[in-house]
Amino acid sequence: MTKTACIIGGGVIGGGWAARFLLNGWNVRVSDPDPEAERKIGEVLGNARRSLPGLSDAPLPDEGRLTFHGSVAEAVEGASWVQESVPERLDIKHRVLAQIEAAAGPEVLIGSSTSGFKPSELQEGAQVPGRIFVAHPFNPVYLLPLAEIVTTQASDDATRGRIGDIIREIGMYPLQVRKEIDAHIADRFLEAVWREALWLVKDGIATTEEIDNAIRYGFGIRWAQMGLFETYRVAGGEAGMKHFMAQFGPCLQWPWTRLTDVPDFTDELVDLIAGQSDEQSGQYSIRELERIRDDNLVSMMRALKARDWGAGRLIKAHDEGLKPAAGLTGGIDAVGDLSQPILTLARAVPIDWTDYNGHMTESRYLDAFAQSTDRFMEIIGCDSDYIASGGSYFTAETHIRHIDEALAGDRIRVTTQMLLGAGKKLHLFHRMWKGETLVATGEHFLLHVSLETRRPCAPSADIEAAMARIAAAQASLPYPEGAGAAIRAPQ
Amino acid sequence: MTKTACIIGGGVIGGGWAARFLLNGWNVRVSDPDPEAERKIGEVLGNARRSLPGLSDAPLPDEGRLTFHGSVAEAVEGASWVQESVPERLDIKHRVLAQIEAAAGPEVLIGSSTSGFKPSELQEGAQVPGRIFVAHPFNPVYLLPLAEIVTTQASDDATRGRIGDIIREIGMYPLQVRKEIDAHIADRFLEAVWREALWLVKDGIATTEEIDNAIRYGFGIRWAQMGLFETYRVAGGEAGMKHFMAQFGPCLQWPWTRLTDVPDFTDELVDLIAGQSDEQSGQYSIRELERIRDDNLVSMMRALKARDWGAGRLIKAHDEGLKPAAGLTGGIDAVGDLSQPILTLARAVPIDWTDYNGHMTESRYLDAFAQSTDRFMEIIGCDSDYIASGGSYFTAETHIRHIDEALAGDRIRVTTQMLLGAGKKLHLFHRMWKGETLVATGEHFLLHVSLETRRPCAPSADIEAAMARIAAAQASLPYPEGAGAAIRAPQ
Repeated sequence: MTKTACIIGGGVIGGGWAARFLLNGWNVRVSDPDPEAERKIGEVLGNARRSLPGLSDAPLPDEGRLTFHGSVAEAVEGASWVQESVPERLDIKHRVLAQIEAAAGPEVLIGSSTSGFKPSELQEGAQVPGRIFVAHPFNPVYLLPLAEIVTTQASDDATRGRIGDIIREIGMYPLQVRKEIDAHIADRFLEAVWREALWLVKDGIATTEEIDNAIRYGFGIRWAQMGLFETYRVAGGEAGMKHFMAQFGPCLQWPWTRLTDVPDFTDELVDLIAGQSDEQSGQYSIRELERIRDDNLVSMMRALKARDWGAGRLIKAHDEGLKPAAGLTGGIDAVGDLSQPILTLARAVPIDWTDYNGHMTESRYLDAFAQSTDRFMEIIGCDSDYIASGGSYFTAETHIRHIDEALAGDRIRVTTQMLLGAGKKLHLFHRMWKGETLVATGEHFLLHVSLETRRPCAPSADIEAAMARIAAAQASLPYPEGAGAAIRAPQ
Repeated sequence: MTKTACIIGGGVIGGGWAARFLLNGWNVRVSDPDPEAERKIGEVLGNARRSLPGLSDAPLPDEGRLTFHGSVAEAVEGASWVQESVPERLDIKHRVLAQIEAAAGPEVLIGSSTSGFKPSELQEGAQVPGRIFVAHPFNPVYLLPLAEIVTTQASDDATRGRIGDIIREIGMYPLQVRKEIDAHIADRFLEAVWREALWLVKDGIATTEEIDNAIRYGFGIRWAQMGLFETYRVAGGEAGMKHFMAQFGPCLQWPWTRLTDVPDFTDELVDLIAGQSDEQSGQYSIRELERIRDDNLVSMMRALKARDWGAGRLIKAHDEGLKPAAGLTGGIDAVGDLSQPILTLARAVPIDWTDYNGHMTESRYLDAFAQSTDRFMEIIGCDSDYIASGGSYFTAETHIRHIDEALAGDRIRVTTQMLLGAGKKLHLFHRMWKGETLVATGEHFLLHVSLETRRPCAPSADIEAAMARIAAAQASLPYPEGAGAAIRAPQ
């Protein structure tokens, strides 16, 4: 049964939560008194739809249903998770939480997006305090996986377990903060850096653009993959973390940063920073910047995924959970009907597979076909265990025909017909579909090799047997149009 | 003439500078009293050689010559840039700077890698103070582009210009800090975050791994591409930076962070952090972590390059400067001998083109061939201006044959024979070489299209004329073996 989340308070954060849940197959019920809420959430959802599905290498579930409701009580109906993202004033939060509690059964989880309040403050006066907690996300919520989860002693481990399970189900990472503290974790760092950055601009040391460059050309790109401690562990060299701390420790005696000094928040300072920011980024609208940011984030997280590291590793693990429902796991017995071309790929075209016009790039057709070949190999038993034992298939030849185009976000699927599978030879014909439209075909001739000698050799008997089963089942399929043909310039 | 840099003080930072200069074609002369210096620099250089060349989409110049010298005076000989990376003690820096000055002509630039001292402190007692400045890099120096350049009033604009030119020449970004200040810019942020992170671990709020995750799953990956201010500009939404500051401003009144409090640097704290770090990262050696980090950085920076943004845009601009020397720019008249297959690609195989075993991934062969096709299009006049005017070529069919393998870091080149170029038709045959070994061939049939109708049509007369010139010049080349052939499973 489709699960339901309730979003109280739209805007960028509430809209981001709504998009996360919706695109992961949940129904979402929204309540926000702002008459613009529907438009605003629609814009966030538009950004999410163009970037999140392709972040995965497996198809997301069908989108849930989005509805808007006039009252908190109505919106809460049927929800198993309620996420509060109303303005950062404790009196408003208390009022809204009371409305939620009045309408929600005691088992319903109630998360707050607050960056400033501790869960014990939110729980004051609650009926069932233990189900109220902080679930603090980071913008854009539909792409960034971090959710800081802060509970109090009022919550039991079962509740914490349910919170973590749902956060993981929607592709996020539940960072269980061990004790409540003002601003949780990440915002404490952000506040320190923001404070220091204001001084640097005010004192004329650097402009906003120069400060951004100091971050993104240096430690920012380091932190994106290893964070702080692992980065310093590497910097410490073979001598390790203790050595690094011995070196860096004494520096703490010289506070370089301005720390507790706060620059006066005058109109002058605001104008100085806003003016520099206009000069730096004013050539782009906020909508354009959002898309540039999302394209960058998707591309970098997918780059990390290819390295099986950091946020990329998280997303990869989430993909694995999506594959069974899409029929993209298991061996030959997991394939329903062997007599037809076999589904070997189903996914959305990701942003990093496309050019500036959003068209899928030539080489990514082969990327998709290569993934289909990998899946076919897995079906016949050439899986990671088999490859680790020293055998695999190498592609000898490839013939791609482009018939139509695919765009960023298009859902594509590939079906695979085996033209020959016997001894060391494997001849495959992939068809890429967008709905009922044939987009491209890929014909591939592979040889089974020993990874030690890198020379052709026969595969295992199990693989031979699996290929024989598919050959028999697909024997009556017509030989595909376009297969076995040379490139010849038409006259 | 090959330029020469002198590196005083090896280790991770000096070694990183040495690698930057060497791989960008400079000769490098090193002086370091440490008997292990040659080994240590060799290890840094090994890491640099496997990651930096492929970061570029153009071939780097031939490596310069690396030599080791027994004295500062000998090492400085012939150098136009001397980089000091000795320990962070002002008395040692003064002594070494005096030795450098005694041996170097007054026009030689003397950079210091110091993170803690201001240039005015370094210049105390100098003969020519204006040529001594801070050039503060970030580890790994061979990959991260940021160099904080800090000068004093003693330096003139011509000197600052020469510093910036050389930093850009070796692929870095000279961030000219506008006024000297303790710790320059980035380390002020790092100090604030480090201080706060120590408290979080000490107080049991989070472990080192959880803190790293709080950074790399959230703001770290945001900062890697937009830094601080541009990220907040987007967060402010359509109302912009002023709106954001109005929202965030009041928070400064509540200092969340521990700020000036310094945790006691006891053995207990060191053990706590080192122990958590072991648990987090102890399964990898430092050498492994360095390579993982470098693979991640290369992959993410190349992902940003494909989006033409941030560090990726910097690297792309640097590539453009390398292409003329490699014969990879200009139109048909820039091609030397039209009668032979034309060089259309020359590069190192980048890390993000390879699998875990370092072998070039199947789809990246097509990526390389597609880049060759783009270069060939540019040669015949189908350049970015022409494409902007509404015409281009679309690939209809591709036939790739794999003959040998390429590995990460291998220098490959592609030569292109035109089999047919007339009217709307373009039939190309690419050969990929590694030295004298043929690695793969790519046969491609393209059609000239109108980008408006996306239907085939004739190209411009200039393109027709260029194709005719190449057709006439290449008429006597033999038809390539393997062209015009279908995939047929050998019997």
